[in-house]
Amino acid sequence: MNQANKITLNHIAIAVPDLDAALKFYRDALGIAVAGIDHVEQEGVKVAFLPLGDPAAHDGHPPQIELVQPTRDGTGIAKWLGKHGAGMHHLCVQVPDINAAMRQARDHGAELINPEPARRDNGTLYAFIHPKSTFGVLIELYQPS
Amino acid sequence: MNQANKITLNHIAIAVPDLDAALKFYRDALGIAVAGIDHVEQEGVKVAFLPLGDPAAHDGHPPQIELVQPTRDGTGIAKWLGKHGAGMHHLCVQVPDINAAMRQARDHGAELINPEPARRDNGTLYAFIHPKSTFGVLIELYQPS
Repeated sequence: MNQANKITLNHIAIAVPDLDAALKFYRDALGIAVAGIDHVEQEGVKVAFLPLGDPAAHDGHPPQIELVQPTRDGTGIAKWLGKHGAGMHHLCVQVPDINAAMRQARDHGAELINPEPARRDNGTLYAFIHPKSTFGVLIELYQPS
Repeated sequence: MNQANKITLNHIAIAVPDLDAALKFYRDALGIAVAGIDHVEQEGVKVAFLPLGDPAAHDGHPPQIELVQPTRDGTGIAKWLGKHGAGMHHLCVQVPDINAAMRQARDHGAELINPEPARRDNGTLYAFIHPKSTFGVLIELYQPS
């Protein structure tokens, strides 16, 4: 496996105003199984995780659709939803070394929203690349812990 | 592997006005290898295929980013790009039986853009689900030949 092959798709985040209604489409009409639902109080979101594919074929982590519903006003995702309406919020690509990935992106002129990787409580690292550098798609770089 | 696990992500299509410029980001700045570039004269598009992940772990077909540049005016993708600007055009999910998937979607009230599956020259079948049924994301159902 060469270096390029190590860049994988972690998730596609879709912002929705009503998680239960969105599950009626993605789970019931489209038929994707729900692996879990989290309420992340700190970030003000409820998130449903819908893996696409067989976990055994992806080291346990197939790419997922993540349906994200804001649970309070004033968060970034709540404001985005108010402005754009429901739709794809970002693509998350997983990289083996986020610092190297950020350096490479910056060296090629891409604008990073986070100047340094941010760290979640579980030790994972992430940073966003501005849509104006990516042809309209907010991209999250993500390094597992 | 249960039935739900058989729904996989085939590609994420991103509409761009200039394929070479988009490759400077996705290939050079983000570092995803390009598997190929097609000029589909019939559909009026040039498409670059950028697989995310190791083909060996995905039966040879990892999910791909597809960068799509219209090559003439008047096509659906050219009109979309003129209206929205660059960005994600659609998500393509691969299903084992497109007729069953379309029936299930319709039974749950989803609006299909194609009433019957369309067929490409290579025998693959596809149909689109309207974004108003999917919380803002144009979804292509796809059955390999």
